[in-house]
Amino acid sequence: MIYNKKYRRNYIGKAFVEPVGKEKTMKITLKNGEVKEFEAGMSAFDIARELGLAKVACAAEINGKICDMRTCLDKDSTLNILTFEDEQGQRAFNHTASHVLAQAVKRLFPKTKLAIGPAIDNGFYYDFDTEEPFTVETLAKIEAEMKKIVKESIKLEQFTLSPDEAIKYLEEQDEPYKVELCKEHADKGEPISFYKQGDFTDLCAGPHLMSTSSVKAYKLTSVTGAYWRGSEKNKMLTRIYGTAFPSKDALNEYLTSVEEAKKRDHNKLGRELEYFTTVDYIGQGLPILLPKGAKVIQILQRWVEDEEAKRGCLLTKTPYMAKRELYKISGHWDHYLDGMFVLGDPDDETKECFALRPMTCPFQYQVFLNRQRSYRDLPMRLTETSTLFRNEDSGEMHGLIRVRQFTISEGHYILRPEQLEEEFKECLDLAKYMLGTVGLLEDCTFRFSQWDPANPKNKYEGTAEQWETAQNAMEKILNDLGVEYTIGIDEAAFYGPKLDIQYKNVFGKEDTLVTIQIDMLLAPLFGMEYVDVDGTKRHPYIIHRTSLGCYERTLAYMIEKYAGALPLWLSPEQVRILPVTDRAKEYGEKIAADLDKYGIRTTVDNRNEKIGYKIRQAQLEKIPYFFIVGDKEVEDNTVSLRSRKDGDLGASPTDEVIAKIVKENADKVR
Amino acid sequence: MIYNKKYRRNYIGKAFVEPVGKEKTMKITLKNGEVKEFEAGMSAFDIARELGLAKVACAAEINGKICDMRTCLDKDSTLNILTFEDEQGQRAFNHTASHVLAQAVKRLFPKTKLAIGPAIDNGFYYDFDTEEPFTVETLAKIEAEMKKIVKESIKLEQFTLSPDEAIKYLEEQDEPYKVELCKEHADKGEPISFYKQGDFTDLCAGPHLMSTSSVKAYKLTSVTGAYWRGSEKNKMLTRIYGTAFPSKDALNEYLTSVEEAKKRDHNKLGRELEYFTTVDYIGQGLPILLPKGAKVIQILQRWVEDEEAKRGCLLTKTPYMAKRELYKISGHWDHYLDGMFVLGDPDDETKECFALRPMTCPFQYQVFLNRQRSYRDLPMRLTETSTLFRNEDSGEMHGLIRVRQFTISEGHYILRPEQLEEEFKECLDLAKYMLGTVGLLEDCTFRFSQWDPANPKNKYEGTAEQWETAQNAMEKILNDLGVEYTIGIDEAAFYGPKLDIQYKNVFGKEDTLVTIQIDMLLAPLFGMEYVDVDGTKRHPYIIHRTSLGCYERTLAYMIEKYAGALPLWLSPEQVRILPVTDRAKEYGEKIAADLDKYGIRTTVDNRNEKIGYKIRQAQLEKIPYFFIVGDKEVEDNTVSLRSRKDGDLGASPTDEVIAKIVKENADKVR
Repeated sequence: MIYNKKYRRNYIGKAFVEPVGKEKTMKITLKNGEVKEFEAGMSAFDIARELGLAKVACAAEINGKICDMRTCLDKDSTLNILTFEDEQGQRAFNHTASHVLAQAVKRLFPKTKLAIGPAIDNGFYYDFDTEEPFTVETLAKIEAEMKKIVKESIKLEQFTLSPDEAIKYLEEQDEPYKVELCKEHADKGEPISFYKQGDFTDLCAGPHLMSTSSVKAYKLTSVTGAYWRGSEKNKMLTRIYGTAFPSKDALNEYLTSVEEAKKRDHNKLGRELEYFTTVDYIGQGLPILLPKGAKVIQILQRWVEDEEAKRGCLLTKTPYMAKRELYKISGHWDHYLDGMFVLGDPDDETKECFALRPMTCPFQYQVFLNRQRSYRDLPMRLTETSTLFRNEDSGEMHGLIRVRQFTISEGHYILRPEQLEEEFKECLDLAKYMLGTVGLLEDCTFRFSQWDPANPKNKYEGTAEQWETAQNAMEKILNDLGVEYTIGIDEAAFYGPKLDIQYKNVFGKEDTLVTIQIDMLLAPLFGMEYVDVDGTKRHPYIIHRTSLGCYERTLAYMIEKYAGALPLWLSPEQVRILPVTDRAKEYGEKIAADLDKYGIRTTVDNRNEKIGYKIRQAQLEKIPYFFIVGDKEVEDNTVSLRSRKDGDLGASPTDEVIAKIVKENADKVR
Repeated sequence: MIYNKKYRRNYIGKAFVEPVGKEKTMKITLKNGEVKEFEAGMSAFDIARELGLAKVACAAEINGKICDMRTCLDKDSTLNILTFEDEQGQRAFNHTASHVLAQAVKRLFPKTKLAIGPAIDNGFYYDFDTEEPFTVETLAKIEAEMKKIVKESIKLEQFTLSPDEAIKYLEEQDEPYKVELCKEHADKGEPISFYKQGDFTDLCAGPHLMSTSSVKAYKLTSVTGAYWRGSEKNKMLTRIYGTAFPSKDALNEYLTSVEEAKKRDHNKLGRELEYFTTVDYIGQGLPILLPKGAKVIQILQRWVEDEEAKRGCLLTKTPYMAKRELYKISGHWDHYLDGMFVLGDPDDETKECFALRPMTCPFQYQVFLNRQRSYRDLPMRLTETSTLFRNEDSGEMHGLIRVRQFTISEGHYILRPEQLEEEFKECLDLAKYMLGTVGLLEDCTFRFSQWDPANPKNKYEGTAEQWETAQNAMEKILNDLGVEYTIGIDEAAFYGPKLDIQYKNVFGKEDTLVTIQIDMLLAPLFGMEYVDVDGTKRHPYIIHRTSLGCYERTLAYMIEKYAGALPLWLSPEQVRILPVTDRAKEYGEKIAADLDKYGIRTTVDNRNEKIGYKIRQAQLEKIPYFFIVGDKEVEDNTVSLRSRKDGDLGASPTDEVIAKIVKENADKVR
């Protein structure tokens, strides 16, 4: 499915030339609100040139739509010239770089067949059907050819053909993959778009830069195999990944940041620092949290549960599996079965069949359903440190981020409709407080995830009217709260719209960390009712919310963010005492006992090793503080303090140092 | 299997008459150590009469074997006359009562066919194939007939027949079930034992009382259906349960205690007090812990994890499922597959197949295996708050005690062999401390669970020699520690012997609460090695241990033990404040905030209800303390304190009351 979307984006976009009108001039409202008058019929690029933006322009946003710069305007419009700094500008840039790559490959290896070559986050790729496999050495050769193409400053030109002409043309070019793509869209009867640059022409919807000369700096980063259309039933093609920038400096900065990010990669660093491991015979996506990882999650879990209790949440503990019958009521059986682990034959109705839970909702509702409820019981804020299971492909698994089993604080607030706004606000406040405290909020954005009214078949519960009600309620709340958000169509849960808090990790990859959802559909399915003030029975509304994000993933992001040096309060080992002499060992043990009274996790390294060796090891393990104690410190009742962050801090009275660390721990300093 | 055991016990016991010797006198060592001389050939009952024990004697233990009192002694022996106070004496008593029941039924309904009628804990039952179903009214009629039989003082007599004669006799009596039982044992060629009392004769191995007159007090407690031989493929029979005592007083005391226990039954009280519930469409054995239950388990879990950390344990968090390959190494696939939930087809080796874990061992070993280990790393004390899954029949499920999913602190201590005794001692100390703190230790006994050398096929890993080594080590440790234990043959884990801490609940039913196991077998299977002091690689020993018992079951036992009034430190709600006036509401909130600072779980009942109603509700909910505050208390800065245990304690300064409660909580007073 995802494949098809990408592919469509690649060559049937929405950037076809707008019809040109007849007025002589038009008023163009620019991004900064300024209104300028231009001759009607000018292209976006013509206007960019007038504005002095010709060199940086990559694409145009005309009346809210992303367009090629070749698009002509003929009436009063809003126009935003997109540069490399804009996401869609960057995409056009990278897309042109992918054409340069393809042109170079065709020049060097004329028998190569072209498949697809889209822009992606931070770069592009192109899939080729090659006569011989490409190696890293081939890449260098291709890069050299690309350099020539850029130097040649070749103009890119767009043209369209009728479907029949297009197919004929591609057949003549002997491009069977392009023919296949083209044929699929031929029956729509719409003209098919191509881009031509010198001796190279590609089936493509654009948008594109005006000339190859803009692709000043690029790098082919890797070569790998990829099945045609993503299916292992098809031929394995050769995929070349690359990235491109308007300047050498920008490219180098990016490559350095990628190298830096790799060093922070939790899947490497988290294993080296012994936070977690995986084992082949246990399975992919089933990480083993080693004592350090388990300790961090214990600290987080207690903090989350205590904070939630303070805010009026009631903790529950519900089973990890249920009979098929439960999921039939909740809709998971119809909408989510593929994602669930089933115990037994799901199709054999004569036998008991269980499934592991992918979500906590239908389990937690049983707490509400335990007895008759009245308006006095609402809001009922239920929360659970909940382990969930998702049946995903082994190939999708990644460290602590893509897993088959994870634990999350999942809450369901059961409400009277009039409590919706206030409780939603409380949920958002809770999530912001928690993400802020662990230091991840600053890398988050908000997405209002809605259903897709065009494609509701079997994917969503409820009617269009019910969805409109829920989404309108959510929109109003978000606007009232002044939340800045993007909209994600077809990203809703099957039972309602969501506010997703999206986290961008050190590699720039975005994932949902926390979600707050409005659900007006499930309560009636479960017969959930309360007696209202006037004695009538009503269905409650439900907010589904998480507060921190799943513990495994949060740990992964923190390892990456802090490059393994977690804040003091979350460090599995907070202080290590390194005695220099035998006499100091006892003193070290005494200090450790004192720290222990304050709940500071301390160890004493009493091994008969050189002090330099002990210090290096403590540094490598990223222990926040270590105390070096020798005979002098014993006499003076001091410690020589070293901080992971600030290095050697010299000798200080032991009491003062302990007080400082206790405070930093209690304040959850980052 | 269980069925067969019971059945055998019912009629082929070990109480056959011992051969009589030729000496004229014999020296009999009594239970108190006294040695008395008797004429050779006297029966145990004759000797009991000489000792003045004729009236209370139920059975005899001769040279360590349980025998019928009719057994004659012919040589120097030890003799213990068993009375109703002894478990085996009570069994003989109840067994005779079951014969009285069967005699009464045959007198009233001569066409009834007899199946089996054993003694059980606290009573007996008899299964009948009846012409018409028996009702509660029928029971009264049967009880009346039993009364007559007891009054008739009918002597019980034992006789034996050859197998052929026995079958012929039972065929003549038209007792098809007895014929079936008899035939199964006919091929052994041993004589078959019968007991006769007046007009009633039963195939039976005994032992039995001498006369029906001893069954002074009895009660038929229920009538239910039961399949012949426990299999639903067979005919449904009518089972009558009863209990019997040597006196009316003892019977009444027992019946009262049963009523009392029923009131404490966690499966009733735990639901009423909203600790947990179950839901049909989720499934049997999958309880939902409501907020009160979840809170108790949260408190217990934190306490357990902290205490374990103090004792040097490292917390882990390992996945709840693994591929088949893991269980093949560990032996679970061969020895435990029936008890596991499997995801996928276990027989299809071409596809990935996962199973939920029934134990934590093979998962936790991966922590040790994460890198090379040396003797310096040992003992490595790993622990986990671990959720486990056992695939048991729906019919076996019961409240929080027999469940399909449960959570337990499971630890594995990985050791050098020379550390075994010290670490075992530490495990036992930990378990005793924990069970003592929650108040369950006083109802516990210890069982040394060994393998069955006669039946090692497929049930146990390892050789007889390895088992001997492990069991000898455990025996030595238990004896060194002075642990008083019973021995359970065929009760070991498949990989090693266990010390089981057995808990007897309010109904007198025994279950394993905590277990400490010695395992010398699994480390080699997983390739677990450490480099010893001398540089050689060795396999470690492993202790498997739990520290408190699974949380769900511990909660159930505590609800029963404390009749729902859990000790203060474990009460979900510790203090409730009941303001009498509007003015006192604010004062109540202030006190609640003060208590909150000390972590005391407090609520304020600010509803506009009468104070009497609020008090009654607090009492029903078994809140440990409630404060009644009115205008006077506001003025004096006092509270009127009520204790769940001690009632009205009058007004006291608020500070003092808070201090008292904080101390009781910190001291974990029971």
